[in-house]
Amino acid sequence: MAKKKTPAAAGTRYIIGVDLGGTNIVAGAMPEDGSREIAMRAQPTYVEQGAESIVDRISQMVEDVISVTMAETGAERSDFIGVGIGAPGPFNRERGIVVVAPNLGWHDFPLRDRVSDRVGLPATLDNDANCATVGEWWCGAARGGRHVVGLTIGTGIGGGLIINGQLYHGASDVAGEIGHSTIDSTGRRCKCGNYGCLEAYASGPAIAERAREALGVDGSSSLPRMVGGKLERITAQTVYDAAKNGDPVARDVVRDTARFLGTGVATLLNVLNPDVVVIAGGVTQAGEALFEPLRAEVKRRAFRPAFDACRIVPGSLAGSAGVVGAVATFKLQTTGSV
Amino acid sequence: MAKKKTPAAAGTRYIIGVDLGGTNIVAGAMPEDGSREIAMRAQPTYVEQGAESIVDRISQMVEDVISVTMAETGAERSDFIGVGIGAPGPFNRERGIVVVAPNLGWHDFPLRDRVSDRVGLPATLDNDANCATVGEWWCGAARGGRHVVGLTIGTGIGGGLIINGQLYHGASDVAGEIGHSTIDSTGRRCKCGNYGCLEAYASGPAIAERAREALGVDGSSSLPRMVGGKLERITAQTVYDAAKNGDPVARDVVRDTARFLGTGVATLLNVLNPDVVVIAGGVTQAGEALFEPLRAEVKRRAFRPAFDACRIVPGSLAGSAGVVGAVATFKLQTTGSV
Repeated sequence: MAKKKTPAAAGTRYIIGVDLGGTNIVAGAMPEDGSREIAMRAQPTYVEQGAESIVDRISQMVEDVISVTMAETGAERSDFIGVGIGAPGPFNRERGIVVVAPNLGWHDFPLRDRVSDRVGLPATLDNDANCATVGEWWCGAARGGRHVVGLTIGTGIGGGLIINGQLYHGASDVAGEIGHSTIDSTGRRCKCGNYGCLEAYASGPAIAERAREALGVDGSSSLPRMVGGKLERITAQTVYDAAKNGDPVARDVVRDTARFLGTGVATLLNVLNPDVVVIAGGVTQAGEALFEPLRAEVKRRAFRPAFDACRIVPGSLAGSAGVVGAVATFKLQTTGSV
Repeated sequence: MAKKKTPAAAGTRYIIGVDLGGTNIVAGAMPEDGSREIAMRAQPTYVEQGAESIVDRISQMVEDVISVTMAETGAERSDFIGVGIGAPGPFNRERGIVVVAPNLGWHDFPLRDRVSDRVGLPATLDNDANCATVGEWWCGAARGGRHVVGLTIGTGIGGGLIINGQLYHGASDVAGEIGHSTIDSTGRRCKCGNYGCLEAYASGPAIAERAREALGVDGSSSLPRMVGGKLERITAQTVYDAAKNGDPVARDVVRDTARFLGTGVATLLNVLNPDVVVIAGGVTQAGEALFEPLRAEVKRRAFRPAFDACRIVPGSLAGSAGVVGAVATFKLQTTGSV
């Protein structure tokens, strides 16, 4: 027994984090103090197999994470105190319910209690973009911030807010839906039904869509060749790759993306005056080609004392921010602080 | 002595509130518990006479308010514990300095300490729109709210945020500049230098400007007759009056104002998920002709759980919200709560 538990691990308690997305489920464990990531793993979500199958898969992943963590650290099963879950879409924190998740086809699904019952541990539920923001704040690029705005750019644009050092949920757990800030009131149609949302301009699919539109008037781009002439295969990733290689159309699309994001971020600076804006997700692969014009647009639009007080940075926990944040939200919901 | 002090007033302490605007200075007193407004009075600001003259005038008004309150309530001078001041523009709360106030022509003016020295009482400084929001939250239409967004529509559009039951200032006292949310990224030029700010569409002068523009293409309006043919005399008030009398151009302008405001408010609902949005200032004189289409626009644009959780109401402290809020911010800055 003495051999199994190293002195460093003695008394350490562990929390498991689960990040449920429309494409992948990611899970892992951390010691309570957030000092490291253990047993990180990802699996496809297989949405089409339905909610029960997803609960099965999450529960199995949690068991695997526990086994591997025990083997790696010498911890015992009783050292695992709970599971934090991040899931997409509107949710009810108090009841642990996913209210609507279009990408999963779920309505009012009691994910928290289903997972908790299966693994025999307490569980909490929060929004995936809230979790990603908390993850970057606890262990990543937004560390040390007191008022943090987080954006996660992927299929949609999610967001989370840390205000006065606390994750902010608002009156009905909707707070932080930054992707659905209007930047052009009569602009592009958004999947939410509204017009001119930031998400309709700067999400991954919107970036690809704008690139396809731009090709219509410019024959000099390498983008069509990159996808074998099948323009529907252009993704945001294709655009970033082409921009890095100097493709003029792709560069314009990235610059416009920076302008749209900068408009939305400037509004957030004037309204919320954060000390950190952290932007995560695939879009950060565009690197300084995105962040430089983005900061310039924010500087142009926001009040100077708001711009001066804020650093605008890419996330630093690629792939794991959601899991790290799910661990942190378990702590927040059960103890009130990280 | 026993005669001077009524039993109800015994032990009651009073705070003086000052609301400094580009046009008027308003002042008054309240008992610490905010139960009533006493000795409310207004004077022109006379910006052209300079900062020293304004400090003189504020100090004299504070003395007048103290005298009248003493006469009315039987309070003694030692029952007055301080002065809360609300002033326009960016400010530094800690140092009590008005950083920039274009309407006053001020830069880095130590208003708090100048007034405090003159009247021999502790003083605090906060932004005027923050004060108006706190006033409506403490004693007016936003009472009972936990997460409150306040808009004050006049020459500009100011804003204030109550988050988790606390006035929120952000990282550098800029938070709440709702008038400078972008609603159309390539839209109307704003005085702040940006394009498409909410203020460029829905402030008093912007409403008048849009009415003048609309007249160019519609000869059926009564607006030109109402200002003796001098279109530059059209104000937002003229527009509300004409709309009430059924003028079609004025009605369109009010409806468009509701649409622009609704766009900005919907973004705030998606991002901040407040339980109350309180809108104060001259624009509320348009009444339900404004608020009904405004709520409809918000409902169309915001997430349903955010819309359902929020009441959108006109302010109820016409003329005194700034003073009431200045009293409340004195309490907030000196004791941490109201």
